[in-house]
Formats: sequence, structure tokens, C-alpha cells
Amino acid sequence: MDERAALGLIGDALPAAGDDCAIVGSTVVTTDMLHETTDFPPGTTRYTAGWRSVGASLSDVAAMGAEATAAVAVYAAPSFEESELRAFLRGAREVCETTGARYVGGDLDSHEEFTVATTALGETDAPVSRSGATPGEAVCVTGTLGRSAGGFRLFETDPERANELFRFEPRVATGRAVAPHASAMMDSSDGLARSLHQLAEAADCGFAIESDRLPVHESVAEVAADDADARELALHFGEDFELVFTTPEPERVRETSPIPVAVVGEVTETSVEMDGEPLPDRGYTH
Amino acid sequence: MDERAALGLIGDALPAAGDDCAIVGSTVVTTDMLHETTDFPPGTTRYTAGWRSVGASLSDVAAMGAEATAAVAVYAAPSFEESELRAFLRGAREVCETTGARYVGGDLDSHEEFTVATTALGETDAPVSRSGATPGEAVCVTGTLGRSAGGFRLFETDPERANELFRFEPRVATGRAVAPHASAMMDSSDGLARSLHQLAEAADCGFAIESDRLPVHESVAEVAADDADARELALHFGEDFELVFTTPEPERVRETSPIPVAVVGEVTETSVEMDGEPLPDRGYTH
Repeated sequence: MDERAALGLIGDALPAAGDDCAIVGSTVVTTDMLHETTDFPPGTTRYTAGWRSVGASLSDVAAMGAEATAAVAVYAAPSFEESELRAFLRGAREVCETTGARYVGGDLDSHEEFTVATTALGETDAPVSRSGATPGEAVCVTGTLGRSAGGFRLFETDPERANELFRFEPRVATGRAVAPHASAMMDSSDGLARSLHQLAEAADCGFAIESDRLPVHESVAEVAADDADARELALHFGEDFELVFTTPEPERVRETSPIPVAVVGEVTETSVEMDGEPLPDRGYTH
Repeated sequence: MDERAALGLIGDALPAAGDDCAIVGSTVVTTDMLHETTDFPPGTTRYTAGWRSVGASLSDVAAMGAEATAAVAVYAAPSFEESELRAFLRGAREVCETTGARYVGGDLDSHEEFTVATTALGETDAPVSRSGATPGEAVCVTGTLGRSAGGFRLFETDPERANELFRFEPRVATGRAVAPHASAMMDSSDGLARSLHQLAEAADCGFAIESDRLPVHESVAEVAADDADARELALHFGEDFELVFTTPEPERVRETSPIPVAVVGEVTETSVEMDGEPLPDRGYTH
């Protein structure tokens, strides 16, 4: 079975799973695994790897509208180089600091391929699920889309900038500010298009997106071969770890949010479309 | 640097780490990664793998004297076979049920080698650290030693029994019962000898162990080549996930504990010895 079918099986078997985080009382918990071959392009520093892998889990906490409290990681590698390990720990700690969470440790493991498993914890009495979108509401995106795609393409020519683009800021503070006004929320780790399809499926609704409202990261224009490629990078590449959410009061959200929020379209009865055309349900194929 | 030096580096960088679990308020959290080549011998079923990997993290929660609340896992494999995934989930859920924790989900990941990353959460207002042993106290072990070693050797001849031996019961209820009386506690995942050295280092003390008091699992005699081998399996093989702890009141502990507790020796001023001879600081080399 493919990964989506397998995830469906897990969702059926475990009602507590299936959102960005599992909920245990007022605690939310999420776990991820990242690998050198699939997640860290050549040139990714261990500092960036620590930042990004722990950040990915903190992003899931943000998507629940929760306060981030703590994170742990398993660092698995063929050997343990002191400078690499220190850099990883610094990245992990610093990304936690941007969110107010504590990086409290983890474990080491000998493994052929550099692999990181991270877990983040959060607290909230009112988690925002993926399933509350209602037709007529606005659909919003925090920050910009395509930042990771831009970074990914820049590793060969400008690794320093690529690493910088890969060190995103998890939207924990924004998630907290948005949560009271959001009817549904998730992060854009699989790309905006895939996120919209997942939100649509969870609430049995549709979306009408306007392409000229998409907040595309400046690096996309630099690295894209043409307009079609740019569109691919902004909509489908994913891994931007921005928040995608629906709200009946987009103006209130924009007043409250500490970072820019773009209204990119609205919730409809059925079908996920952009500029009147179906938006393919496709993400993270790199 | 080797894994121990690297763990020392993490311990220095992160004061919250360095015990079986990190402590975040009243929550304890622990994470582990297990791999097919190092942790699951040929013949290990996915049911056993789910049980054992989640159980290893629950054992760390037990070692803090905490109540186990929840666990998550990342299941990484080259492909997702429905029957294997279901068996894994069942094992993960059932081992949680033995402890009162909820298995709340996790993630899937495509990866060349079957790899599992697990995280468990617990709650306690009075965590038991590794550092409180005082000379004159008793040192105790729950259950038996060598069960995993026996299982490991039986995979070729009797895989069903080997799998059964690999599905240990995390000592959460015992940890809760023992905690009010324990001055120091950890689990025996690296073997009794290594655990004693770690407890001795943490409290700057020693131990005097008597070999005839060791509660050795019955399978060890079946699989061991000779007495020296049996001793190796019971003391150094590890992965038994029993609790090793020190206490000033061993009789109270034995009355309270839901499972047998063996007093195997006492805390001394210096040097870890068995039957008057130094006990090598060596573990988990299989």
C-alpha cells in the first residue's frame, strides 16, 4: 500500500492520530523522522539539520494552536563528530528558543544514513483541528510559500543562503494568535495544494483560490525555470511549514497575527480550485 | 568520538537530559530509535517490533517512577505492507495497554532499513533520578536478567518463543510502587553491569554484588554455552528493561512491588564489584 493509504489505516486504527499532533489531555505531541537522502540536500549543515528537523515538529505544534513546551531528538549517524553534534544541538536549541520551547535532549544512535527523529510537545485547552472549514470563510496562509523550494535549488550555487532559507521559523506565536479565530488549521509541510485537499476532505468542502493572492517567496523567481515551474514550487514543493487555516474573520486575524497573513481565497461547497481550474492534489514529490 | 563521549557532550549541553527521561514540569519524555540490523534479529515479527520499540520507551518512563500516559512512533520501512503495519500497531497498542498508557499515533516514513523511532510520555511530581544512591543501601533488580539474551539466541531454533521473550512487560506499575522508597533508579537496557556503573558514577559510590543473588531468566541456562557465557548474558547483554534501583528499605519495597524484586547486593563507598572482584563496565555489544 502507498504511504497515504497506510496513513489512512493508522488514522482508522487510532482515532487520536490523524491531525498535525495527537492530543493527550491538554498536551499535544507529534513526531517526525528526517533522512539525509530525502530531507537534507548535500551542503546542509548539521546546524541547519538540527534547526529544521526540530522545527518541523514545532510546526505541527503550531498548527494545533498550542504553546510549544519541549522537544527531543534522536541523532543517528555513522559516526559522532564533536563539531557536527555540537552544531546540531545548537540548531535544535535555537529553533526551540524562537518558539519558547525547551530543547530537553534525546538520544544517539549508530546508523548508516544520517537520520533524525524529533518529537515536540505543546499545551492547549482548545486545539484547532483540520476539520472545521465552513463555506464562505476565508482561507489564509502565513508568511510565504516556496521558501524551502528556493533553498533546495540554491544548495549548489549558494549553500550559505540555501541553509539560511532552510532554517524557517516555526509559526508557534502566530498559531497561538490565530487559533481563537480559526475554524480549521494545519501546516503546509506537504505544500499548499495538498494542505487544501486535506482540509477539504476533513470538512467535506471545497476551496476557491486566486493565484495572484499567493504570497510567493522572493527566491522562487530566482530559481524557477519558467512560470509553470514557479507555480510548481509555490504550490506543490511544500516543506515551508507555514500555517494554512480558515476563518470567518480574516481582518481580526490580520490585526492579531505577529506576521503577515495572506487571504488567498475562500471556502466553497465542493472542489479545490485555483482561478476556476481544479488544483491537483499533489505534493512533496522531490 | 564514541557514543559514550557523545552522550556526555549532550549531557553537558543539556542539563535536562542525562537521565532515562527528560523532565518538563511534571511531564517526563523519552525517545529512542531502533533498527532492523541492530535491534530486530531475523524472525522478529512486526507485532514484536511494535511491542518492543514502544516498550523500550515506556521502560524509561518506568525508570523515573512516573505514570505512563502516552506513546507515539515513527514507522520507517522500504514499503508499507498492510499486514505488517497492522501487526506493528497492535503490538504498540498492546504494550501501552499493559501500562495504562495510550498509543496515540505517529508517522510513516519511507526508509531503506526498517527503523522505528518511539517517544513515550509520563507524569510524576517526584521523579527518581540516577544519582541518589547512598552507601549501606540495598541494590535491587525487578524480574529477571537475561530474558532478551535468551530470546536473541532462540530466534533461529524457536522463533515463536524468541518473539515471546522479546515482548517484555515495561515495569511501569512496579516503578510507581518502588519510587517512594527508591533513592536512585534506572532501567537495565544496557545490562546490569553497565547500569551499576552508571548509578555509581552518578552518585560517586560503589556496589558490592553477590552473583548467587542474581535473578537469572530460565532461558539463559538453555542457550548459554558454559558458565562464563551465562554470566555474560545475564550481566552484560542487556535489553531486559528491568528496573535497577537502590533503597534504604528493601523489605518495604518487596511488600509493595507487584512483581518479584531481588536484593542483589549493597551500595558501597567506591568500586563496582561482584563477589569481591571488579565488575567490568561493559554492556550491549551484540
